[in-house]
Amino acid sequence: MFNLFSLKGGLNNVEGFFCDGVNVGMKTNPANSGDSDIDGDVAFIRSSVPCDVTARFTSNKFQAAPIKHYQKYEEGFQTDFILMNAKNANAMTGEQGIKDIEDIFETLQEQYKVKNPIMSSTGVIGYRLNQEKITSAFSKFDYDAKNSDKAARSIMTTDSFKKELSFQIELDDGSSFNIAAICKGAGMINPAMATMLCFVTTDADIPKDDMEELLSEATEGSFNRISVDGDTSTNDTIMLLANKLSGAYHKEAFREALNKITFELAMMILKDGEGANKLVAFEVKGAKTEDEARTASIALSNSLLVKTALFGEDPNWGRIASTIGASGIDCDDSTLTIHYDNLLIYSNEQRELDKEREDKAYTIMKNSSFKVTCDLGLGNGNYTSYGCDLSYEYVKINAEYRT
Amino acid sequence: MFNLFSLKGGLNNVEGFFCDGVNVGMKTNPANSGDSDIDGDVAFIRSSVPCDVTARFTSNKFQAAPIKHYQKYEEGFQTDFILMNAKNANAMTGEQGIKDIEDIFETLQEQYKVKNPIMSSTGVIGYRLNQEKITSAFSKFDYDAKNSDKAARSIMTTDSFKKELSFQIELDDGSSFNIAAICKGAGMINPAMATMLCFVTTDADIPKDDMEELLSEATEGSFNRISVDGDTSTNDTIMLLANKLSGAYHKEAFREALNKITFELAMMILKDGEGANKLVAFEVKGAKTEDEARTASIALSNSLLVKTALFGEDPNWGRIASTIGASGIDCDDSTLTIHYDNLLIYSNEQRELDKEREDKAYTIMKNSSFKVTCDLGLGNGNYTSYGCDLSYEYVKINAEYRT
Repeated sequence: MFNLFSLKGGLNNVEGFFCDGVNVGMKTNPANSGDSDIDGDVAFIRSSVPCDVTARFTSNKFQAAPIKHYQKYEEGFQTDFILMNAKNANAMTGEQGIKDIEDIFETLQEQYKVKNPIMSSTGVIGYRLNQEKITSAFSKFDYDAKNSDKAARSIMTTDSFKKELSFQIELDDGSSFNIAAICKGAGMINPAMATMLCFVTTDADIPKDDMEELLSEATEGSFNRISVDGDTSTNDTIMLLANKLSGAYHKEAFREALNKITFELAMMILKDGEGANKLVAFEVKGAKTEDEARTASIALSNSLLVKTALFGEDPNWGRIASTIGASGIDCDDSTLTIHYDNLLIYSNEQRELDKEREDKAYTIMKNSSFKVTCDLGLGNGNYTSYGCDLSYEYVKINAEYRT
Repeated sequence: MFNLFSLKGGLNNVEGFFCDGVNVGMKTNPANSGDSDIDGDVAFIRSSVPCDVTARFTSNKFQAAPIKHYQKYEEGFQTDFILMNAKNANAMTGEQGIKDIEDIFETLQEQYKVKNPIMSSTGVIGYRLNQEKITSAFSKFDYDAKNSDKAARSIMTTDSFKKELSFQIELDDGSSFNIAAICKGAGMINPAMATMLCFVTTDADIPKDDMEELLSEATEGSFNRISVDGDTSTNDTIMLLANKLSGAYHKEAFREALNKITFELAMMILKDGEGANKLVAFEVKGAKTEDEARTASIALSNSLLVKTALFGEDPNWGRIASTIGASGIDCDDSTLTIHYDNLLIYSNEQRELDKEREDKAYTIMKNSSFKVTCDLGLGNGNYTSYGCDLSYEYVKINAEYRT
């Protein structure tokens, strides 16, 4: 029905979108990427024609100023410019934080013919943006650049690698459209819009209603299912921008492509989880309801004791069981089974881990990714979330973040 | 109205109670205490006359076998013997786990004239008790000993110091009674019966109804308010044993003594929190309801980002604010204020932390304990919970726990 191809070059592949990133002195150390270059700290994504836009934001009650500013736009407004910055979240900055955005936009609109800009920020909470530094980027930007690499690097904070993906979708009638995204995130990752910042661009001719429906579905299947530390940021944002320039569209194809791009980006965030070495899927099935499966699955991906056992490569299934029991859902130790990949770790008949199974479990846990399946044996509720281990490095990164 | 005196010697001060602890080879390494002695691993508390008993247990759905066994006793039963062991939680052991306790008790009842024993276990989940080792303690115990020190040490797992307290209460009429407790716990501490094991003995002539009422109140004010890691064990138990031998009682005096003993033990658990260096009180006030204050307060004491900022001694109040916002309660950044001890850290008027206040904040955070007060400015809901920092050591302890 359609073919989906992975492309290199991130946002660059999408017709009518331009982007660039520059350094204005907010990132003053070589980036975490290990490159000797200092990454950018201010970036943009621009569309040559006005875009429809759909966004989902953090559930944190203290939404950052750029989110509050966005929400002042009326339903159905179109944007031509996304301005992004790292190092400063512009959160808990009150009315002044919103006014700072308005001032920055005034400069942008006057001098660079931008019509309806959107701002998106990430970094430390509680400090005003440095307007002078941010606006100094405007004369440095190459507005006709297709520089996805620089844009993706500019929004990195504790990320150790840039996150960008791009797909081309060929339809049966020979028409095609593109979808691409850049994303940042490594900490403050809770299964509630755990994305930090993600910008998806497409030239598909997608109706606005489909944008809303499919972005919700894609977010639920990806960023709402990953946990690094169970903390939810004030700035989490996912935005889908559609400029329709390809003239092509197919709903199921777009759904598949968007689900794929958001899921793969979510897994990239998890692999880049601060100090993380392992990516683990926690499937809870056989729960009385899907809600109960979700509660237990997310408790597992958030549990400190589970995370440290993963880091220690210790097949201590007692912590898995204890976490399920503590999550408050209906469960019964006589119907429960636990598997690591295909290895039975616990059942009513085989409660103690003998030497042979323990050795096999160690082997599985040494892998960089594996699956823990907990079948409660009580119903049809099923949910999978994704977590990572907690290492010394996480503590180090977060004890030293601001300094 | 009454005087309360702190005594040394833990359980030894309470009339009619005897206790001892021995090593039967389950703890094979020198204890965490750093002593060269190997601590005991099986212990008892015995009363010369039958005791009334009141208990509160973990909210974990997978309650350990000793808890299930206890619940088979009928309302109003009296006990004369508590058998305790470390290293093995007898949890997730199914019917066999309960049968093992029954077998052990058969030996105890036949050979040592014990009538109604209760068992309490702590340690690794998912392995059967070694009956032979446990029962080998019975010929080693000194049944007439008052050896609170050994009993308290025997129930230690990752604890780095023993936890025991004792108070004498003198009433106006010249009569007096005693209350004492031993307790263990350092990890798997969530504000939901975060006690692991705690045994309170008294010779007060307390009515059973008061035991129920006052133990609930004391637990809510202490063990239900502390967090090391937000995980809830399968074995959490607090038990109040009253043999009435002093003949003395005064409800308000007993309430104060019990609240004091449980609160101080809870603080000892927190100070001994795995790898923890700091004890921090998180007071949330001005919330719309007490429930909302509790939700936010507990979110703060459980947050990984707050805990690592405490470890880093980083006055990054953005993480405090972000955690309150993420907890889902009603809050408003224009009415919120945050203090560290008496230092104003954040208010609507003073959002950015200037150099002077930041320096003062550093000084406060270097203390081994301090208070974070968040006033939401919305109502009268007030709640305080207690947390600690998260260090490399926590990760080390929990990555290596079973090995």
